[in-house]
Amino acid sequence: MTNPCPENDWIAVDWGTSNLRVWVMRGTAIVERLDADQGMGSIAPKDFEPVLLSLISPFLGPHKTPVVICGMAGSRQGWAEAPYTSVPCGPPGLRHAVRVATKDPRLSVSILPGIKQDAPADVMRGEETQILGYLAKNPDFSGVICLPGTHSKWAQISDGKIEHFRTFMTGELFALLSKSSILRFSVGSDVDVDAFETAVSDMIRRPEDFNADLFGLRAGTLIGDLSGDEAMGRLSGLMVGCELAGARAYWQNQNVALIGASQIVKLYARALATQGVTADIASGEDSVLAGLSAAQHSLEDQI
Amino acid sequence: MTNPCPENDWIAVDWGTSNLRVWVMRGTAIVERLDADQGMGSIAPKDFEPVLLSLISPFLGPHKTPVVICGMAGSRQGWAEAPYTSVPCGPPGLRHAVRVATKDPRLSVSILPGIKQDAPADVMRGEETQILGYLAKNPDFSGVICLPGTHSKWAQISDGKIEHFRTFMTGELFALLSKSSILRFSVGSDVDVDAFETAVSDMIRRPEDFNADLFGLRAGTLIGDLSGDEAMGRLSGLMVGCELAGARAYWQNQNVALIGASQIVKLYARALATQGVTADIASGEDSVLAGLSAAQHSLEDQI
Repeated sequence: MTNPCPENDWIAVDWGTSNLRVWVMRGTAIVERLDADQGMGSIAPKDFEPVLLSLISPFLGPHKTPVVICGMAGSRQGWAEAPYTSVPCGPPGLRHAVRVATKDPRLSVSILPGIKQDAPADVMRGEETQILGYLAKNPDFSGVICLPGTHSKWAQISDGKIEHFRTFMTGELFALLSKSSILRFSVGSDVDVDAFETAVSDMIRRPEDFNADLFGLRAGTLIGDLSGDEAMGRLSGLMVGCELAGARAYWQNQNVALIGASQIVKLYARALATQGVTADIASGEDSVLAGLSAAQHSLEDQI
Repeated sequence: MTNPCPENDWIAVDWGTSNLRVWVMRGTAIVERLDADQGMGSIAPKDFEPVLLSLISPFLGPHKTPVVICGMAGSRQGWAEAPYTSVPCGPPGLRHAVRVATKDPRLSVSILPGIKQDAPADVMRGEETQILGYLAKNPDFSGVICLPGTHSKWAQISDGKIEHFRTFMTGELFALLSKSSILRFSVGSDVDVDAFETAVSDMIRRPEDFNADLFGLRAGTLIGDLSGDEAMGRLSGLMVGCELAGARAYWQNQNVALIGASQIVKLYARALATQGVTADIASGEDSVLAGLSAAQHSLEDQI
């Protein structure tokens, strides 16, 4: 089927540090979903256009096609720097985007900025577009959005604005500890759920025990009867619990939404449930696409 | 000079995960100090004897020479397993050592055991011999001994016994974060002392902020005016402060001794000083040799 209205075609791109996800769009409908492992961390600025073209060339018509990008492609080491907007602010749309000159005349590339906070110093790039997507679907949402991951974000939302936010290195710490520390000899492949929940509660009650409790996993499998899966559950629980202890002001007596990949948001939902908090859950991929779509349509509407 | 009394010669060995340190001894006098990077982690059980011989062969006489070893050589993956003794107990001497059969008839090898604690589960191998050495030099010591390092130990001592202890993964976490995490782009090579002390106090006051404060270093150098050395000082301070927060019961209103390498014990002494605690300081190398010597002489004395 030929597209009767090619000027409505556009390309949505989530370009992170490790991965690149592309959706070829017709309005809000997905024509094609593509991905590659050529994230910002592994390519040079001059490579962004050829990498993108290698994926989307077959979908380009004779006219200019808008390409809307979020994520680390807009960092200083990325394709082109899209300077941060500052909290309090709404998640940035195309009005705040950086337009990038391309060699290929068929491309009209815009990169959405990230958000910064001066005190305490904090930054995000990519998550703000997931928040934009969540708010597009839930326009009356007020409360806190948590985006678990390598660098988990907790953002306080009111009246469609991000008031303030805080980042936790939970995912990166977990990867280092489970794969590169002495604990790699102790952890199994599955998360024992009881051990996870106990460790979450332990951390919220006594966050100062984080460091010693980590070594306790090694000792527990060496001289105790801690199984590999229990150690894995407990390590996950210590990590998430350490984050929840620091983010207490964000979830206590708050309306909480979790955005991310299915497995990790389920784990965070379980951790929050130990504290009596029930969170709304949304897919990270759906949210980022909804956010890119909201940004693209906000320009079309000249809002 | 030939040794007039060869039966008094003995060999002291501290055989850790990464390194091997050997002292050729005449009584309590050092004849020669040798080292190698063939730690327990990089060699197989059958290699321990040849590795040791390659260092000490020139110093062996016709008679059997006692070799006293502490550290990871006594672990299950080491030369021969020296089963843990359990707290409360004095630092183990030769009576608790494992005798290892050797191919070379000139060797009489004993490996000192480590110490374990059932609840909370914890283990040490090597530090107990440093404690033995410190107590040999300070027989009336009562209080807490802290041995900072890859896996820092805090041990409560009374009447020459280790009552209980706790391990913190501070050194290993610091190495992972400063070399393998996103923070490697933020930290400089020197520790800014003011930033270090502020971070220690922050952690003792609010240990739950550990995780978010880590990412704050990245954000602070990215969008703030945090220098590389300030980030390095603050990272060190967050790590040591996180340990002090968890070890509070070990240092608050306690008599504290620090044993270790000069640079790290100075940093810990500075951290403790922010909390009004003045620690006695002892060299890790002197202490382990004094401990091996105390073990060797306790056998000679048949104590």
